[in-house]
Amino acid sequence: MKAFMDRDFLLSNDTAKVLYHDYAKNMPIADYHCHINPIDIAKDIRFENITQLWLGGDHYKWRLMRANGIREEYITGNADDRDKFQKWAETLELAIGNPIYHWSHLELKRYFNYNKILNSETAQEVWDLCNEKLKDPSLSARGIIRSSNVSVLCTTDDPADTLEYHIRLANDKEFETKVYPAFRPDEAVNIEKPGFVDYIDRLSLVSNIRINSFSSLCEALKIRMEFFDSVGCKTSDHGLDFVMYYPATEDEIEKIIKRRLKGMTLSPDEILKFKTALMLFLGRENHRLNWVMQLHYGAKRDNNSRMFENLGPNTGYDCIDDSRSSSAQLADYLNALDITDQLPKTIIYSLNPIENAAIDTVIGCFQNESAIGKLQHGSAWWFNDHEPGMREHLTTLSSTSLISNFVGMLTDSRSFLSYTRHEYFRRILCDMFGTLVETGRYPNDLRILKKLVEDISYNNTIKYFGFDL
Amino acid sequence: MKAFMDRDFLLSNDTAKVLYHDYAKNMPIADYHCHINPIDIAKDIRFENITQLWLGGDHYKWRLMRANGIREEYITGNADDRDKFQKWAETLELAIGNPIYHWSHLELKRYFNYNKILNSETAQEVWDLCNEKLKDPSLSARGIIRSSNVSVLCTTDDPADTLEYHIRLANDKEFETKVYPAFRPDEAVNIEKPGFVDYIDRLSLVSNIRINSFSSLCEALKIRMEFFDSVGCKTSDHGLDFVMYYPATEDEIEKIIKRRLKGMTLSPDEILKFKTALMLFLGRENHRLNWVMQLHYGAKRDNNSRMFENLGPNTGYDCIDDSRSSSAQLADYLNALDITDQLPKTIIYSLNPIENAAIDTVIGCFQNESAIGKLQHGSAWWFNDHEPGMREHLTTLSSTSLISNFVGMLTDSRSFLSYTRHEYFRRILCDMFGTLVETGRYPNDLRILKKLVEDISYNNTIKYFGFDL
Amino acid sequence: MKAFMDRDFLLSNDTAKVLYHDYAKNMPIADYHCHINPIDIAKDIRFENITQLWLGGDHYKWRLMRANGIREEYITGNADDRDKFQKWAETLELAIGNPIYHWSHLELKRYFNYNKILNSETAQEVWDLCNEKLKDPSLSARGIIRSSNVSVLCTTDDPADTLEYHIRLANDKEFETKVYPAFRPDEAVNIEKPGFVDYIDRLSLVSNIRINSFSSLCEALKIRMEFFDSVGCKTSDHGLDFVMYYPATEDEIEKIIKRRLKGMTLSPDEILKFKTALMLFLGRENHRLNWVMQLHYGAKRDNNSRMFENLGPNTGYDCIDDSRSSSAQLADYLNALDITDQLPKTIIYSLNPIENAAIDTVIGCFQNESAIGKLQHGSAWWFNDHEPGMREHLTTLSSTSLISNFVGMLTDSRSFLSYTRHEYFRRILCDMFGTLVETGRYPNDLRILKKLVEDISYNNTIKYFGFDL
Repeated sequence: MKAFMDRDFLLSNDTAKVLYHDYAKNMPIADYHCHINPIDIAKDIRFENITQLWLGGDHYKWRLMRANGIREEYITGNADDRDKFQKWAETLELAIGNPIYHWSHLELKRYFNYNKILNSETAQEVWDLCNEKLKDPSLSARGIIRSSNVSVLCTTDDPADTLEYHIRLANDKEFETKVYPAFRPDEAVNIEKPGFVDYIDRLSLVSNIRINSFSSLCEALKIRMEFFDSVGCKTSDHGLDFVMYYPATEDEIEKIIKRRLKGMTLSPDEILKFKTALMLFLGRENHRLNWVMQLHYGAKRDNNSRMFENLGPNTGYDCIDDSRSSSAQLADYLNALDITDQLPKTIIYSLNPIENAAIDTVIGCFQNESAIGKLQHGSAWWFNDHEPGMREHLTTLSSTSLISNFVGMLTDSRSFLSYTRHEYFRRILCDMFGTLVETGRYPNDLRILKKLVEDISYNNTIKYFGFDL
Repeated sequence: MKAFMDRDFLLSNDTAKVLYHDYAKNMPIADYHCHINPIDIAKDIRFENITQLWLGGDHYKWRLMRANGIREEYITGNADDRDKFQKWAETLELAIGNPIYHWSHLELKRYFNYNKILNSETAQEVWDLCNEKLKDPSLSARGIIRSSNVSVLCTTDDPADTLEYHIRLANDKEFETKVYPAFRPDEAVNIEKPGFVDYIDRLSLVSNIRINSFSSLCEALKIRMEFFDSVGCKTSDHGLDFVMYYPATEDEIEKIIKRRLKGMTLSPDEILKFKTALMLFLGRENHRLNWVMQLHYGAKRDNNSRMFENLGPNTGYDCIDDSRSSSAQLADYLNALDITDQLPKTIIYSLNPIENAAIDTVIGCFQNESAIGKLQHGSAWWFNDHEPGMREHLTTLSSTSLISNFVGMLTDSRSFLSYTRHEYFRRILCDMFGTLVETGRYPNDLRILKKLVEDISYNNTIKYFGFDL
Repeated sequence: MKAFMDRDFLLSNDTAKVLYHDYAKNMPIADYHCHINPIDIAKDIRFENITQLWLGGDHYKWRLMRANGIREEYITGNADDRDKFQKWAETLELAIGNPIYHWSHLELKRYFNYNKILNSETAQEVWDLCNEKLKDPSLSARGIIRSSNVSVLCTTDDPADTLEYHIRLANDKEFETKVYPAFRPDEAVNIEKPGFVDYIDRLSLVSNIRINSFSSLCEALKIRMEFFDSVGCKTSDHGLDFVMYYPATEDEIEKIIKRRLKGMTLSPDEILKFKTALMLFLGRENHRLNWVMQLHYGAKRDNNSRMFENLGPNTGYDCIDDSRSSSAQLADYLNALDITDQLPKTIIYSLNPIENAAIDTVIGCFQNESAIGKLQHGSAWWFNDHEPGMREHLTTLSSTSLISNFVGMLTDSRSFLSYTRHEYFRRILCDMFGTLVETGRYPNDLRILKKLVEDISYNNTIKYFGFDL
């Protein structure tokens, strides 16, 4: 029996061990998509206790606790932090086969040097140990980022954001990690949402453009993209219901936005036409700036109305939407950009894992010499970010494309401790490659294997995004 | 080489063996959904020969024989039982990789103590042995249930049913196994079916409610649910094309049912609105009675018109329907119940295995403190009830939720010998957990592992349904 | 560590080795669907160098090179053949986990006796060796077919084709392999395509039928099917967007085709009705001639408009279309043929692997005594033709049906070297069966295992198609 999560965790053969310990482990981290608040880095925040750090905003953990019938009071409510931690420990010990079991223990090992098992019986010991260690400066926001060997990270930012803290961080010589914004214009795209008109006002203000048409909206976004670019931004990120392609004339689009700005309600068709048009504009601007466009889609959010009333969004009530996505429209959208040679480097993430094969075949239609691995199928996302999900994604990708150019892992996290997910990914990657070698499916050629592993762990990302380090 | 289906069948490591032999194997069976006729238990029927027992109504086996080009005469026709058995043996020996191969041999081992292999050459030996043993009282309906250690089983019953045999069984002190009805109101939901109006008449009669409106239909069903409840029923079960959510006003629904009762044809939209309304009513009644609502969907039935003419329904001509199901509508339906805090404990089964991940994320949106594992993703169903199908279901469930609270296996069977499917499931479960432990993915902590295995095998079901034992 | 691609490549246990080396390996090949040009066989063409043979028309390889950022000049352009080969070697060495890595090395082993590894450093050595060997007559078109032990192969042919080269080959006593046409009437089905009217003219000419109606179109196709039949054809093949079922009256269909022949544009509904009607006619004719109908669907083609302008179709710009396919319509279409007992033997291939389970359940609804394994789920196709894809297809098929009657592998290839894909398939098949035996899931009975392996490798195909050898 292999010991629980030892040095060779997930590494089932000798080649895998060599690939991980000699190559993958030593690479820095480029975390090109996360939800960390840049203020917290700028202010180098500290955490009072492990409950605040672990349960403060992590809806993955909240969902597990709810599935265990724990009272909401102990999850997002006013219960005592120590009691909350106990409920979490009681839940975690039952989470066999869940990635959070592994993530939690990796975090305890790497950041708290706790190498035993967290369960209902050891909760007190872990509580005491973690809270003691949290007093140490090495466990501040910056301390964690530093010790995780993160060379660059990208946050997620609204076009109207001032990027004040990014600018401060850029000027802070004491912090070596590059912290760049990512341009996330969802509020400008979601024309059907109640807050759209207010948002347009806000965007008008910050861009100094009076937005009263589609063209002025584009002009304002362009100004903001150039501002983001000046602060080091290399990527836009988009949360879509699905990647739609409903082409329309300029006139139609102008009429649609004008009707909306007058407070009228749009038809489903009008909404999809507007979004298509704006996503085409944004794609072309990404291409012009040589940015990477990231498309996240396939989520249905805030499905529990009662809890949405109480807690708001991003509280653990989202699911996969399998009803709208279409590889045909995805291909048509990409082609509409490519036809004028304005298709940017693009990373596609669907929340529905059954689309893996379809996406891998779509990206194959738009690869060309303008970039190595120009079109990417993003790493197993959110609900799929677990060992079987990652293995499936990597297996389908390698079977139908060239995995050597894959830009690899990202945390997509709100937590500072999530960098261990890169370790988790790298172990799985090395185990997959090691197994291919040990079973005679790929040659035992360390020259190439080293390159493959180091590139997918880190180098590809730096090259693909063109990060300034 | 491991011997064929020996003591450690499907158990690939030492931990798996301990978990199965020391814990899982010894648990009773709670078979919370099956299609056994309660009359057969009440009358304690006997079987004349193995062909009647095995091929009498098992459309899984019929499909295999047809795929082998066997003449229908030897499947559902008038051929001699011994000849039918020979054709079955000739087919079975070719069924490498099929669960029926394993189920058949488990049944021969457990009920007939036959530990060799059934094939075309041993068919005579098996025929003689089984038919001899079938004379023994231990192989009557009750004998089989008893020796299978079944503590409780739920049949599937129409709201208009008198439950006469359930009542008799409840009063029969000589039979220890609890036999409860399950409420299956499909005929009241399927407003588009030709028999709907006649069915409503039948329901009027038995409920003593003159059904001429939606509200009187609800009243009649409520009366029947209360009657079922008084006989120990703890669950309703529903066969739906898909879980739809087409909300409508009360007025609309009243108009729809009145048009239908006058013999008019409804539009697709009207049908879906009616079904949504009735399923909302039934969900709320389930909640009121603290029942478990089971939703089975995704089948397209009776696809072979010629054979339907000859043989009727449930004869092996059904398939997965991948054209209608939507996780978005499923989430909206559950939310519509939850919004007034009337969402019952619910088990969701789709016939389409590609929905596994989506379903697991939907259930996560409605878990709360009102029950442990309140929302469940039901065990791999029907065409998915095989080793790879169960492993996929368990893997996705554990990766995205808390498998510790899973209510586990059910036979869904028309046959008295199918209890071995619980053994099959438990071996796979123990092998999965054992492998996680032996590969360092979960601690070797028998205190928790014992609990996990015993709970999923049996305890969770008893607690979740609240069976009175 | 297992050596790279040695004698026991993909065979992970002793039973697998016995099954492959003693049984599967020795069976001839019946390649019942490929895209080889019969002229090339008739003329027994030779290849000047390995670039022409490998990169001349293989869009699988082109896609990998584009994903590697190689300039199009080195892919389909005018670069020097030696330079193209170098770029290919540089790409291939990175293709870990891709089937082309294995196919390429199998081809080097079997046809060129090169047993080392092709990569950027060995490219010159391989170039020299292959080009030297290509001078040998054993590497002409016929030489390769002969040495691959191909007893029969089916090309893909238009109804208007004269089959001149098939007739020549049939009369050529020096070539033992049977080369039959397959009837591919896509141009007659695709009524919406710009070339439809011209195609109808061409078909009128060659059939001597003036096509001005649906019935005369059917008459012309019938004449061509009988001609194909007289040349040994045993199968029709169809490339559909999806298997649709939009029934219509004869009158409707006559009106639709007449409108189209007048140059009018059809509605989506009209197009689907016409296609349904013609596919029903073609299905019935297949049944009358005792042919096998092959249905390929689920591709969206030519997605990259810029490259389509430059290179035309079949150049590597196709993807899986997950937006239209429906198991419900597939079942209804098959039932519409079966209802009058005119359903032919049918092989179903979807490009979307997530339909595996649904297809396996659909075929189970139409099996009967008129043929063994009458309905088939075709081998993992195109983008799924890799080890994990084949394993999934075989696993789902065996779990829900009778794999013993499967007609097995086909190359679907434009290349003469692709017969090694049969070897690849057989190794995977033997490994799967061997593993079932070695893990106690199937008895170690070589009598039956030999039959299973030899039948699926070859015998089933000969029997199912009724090839005249």
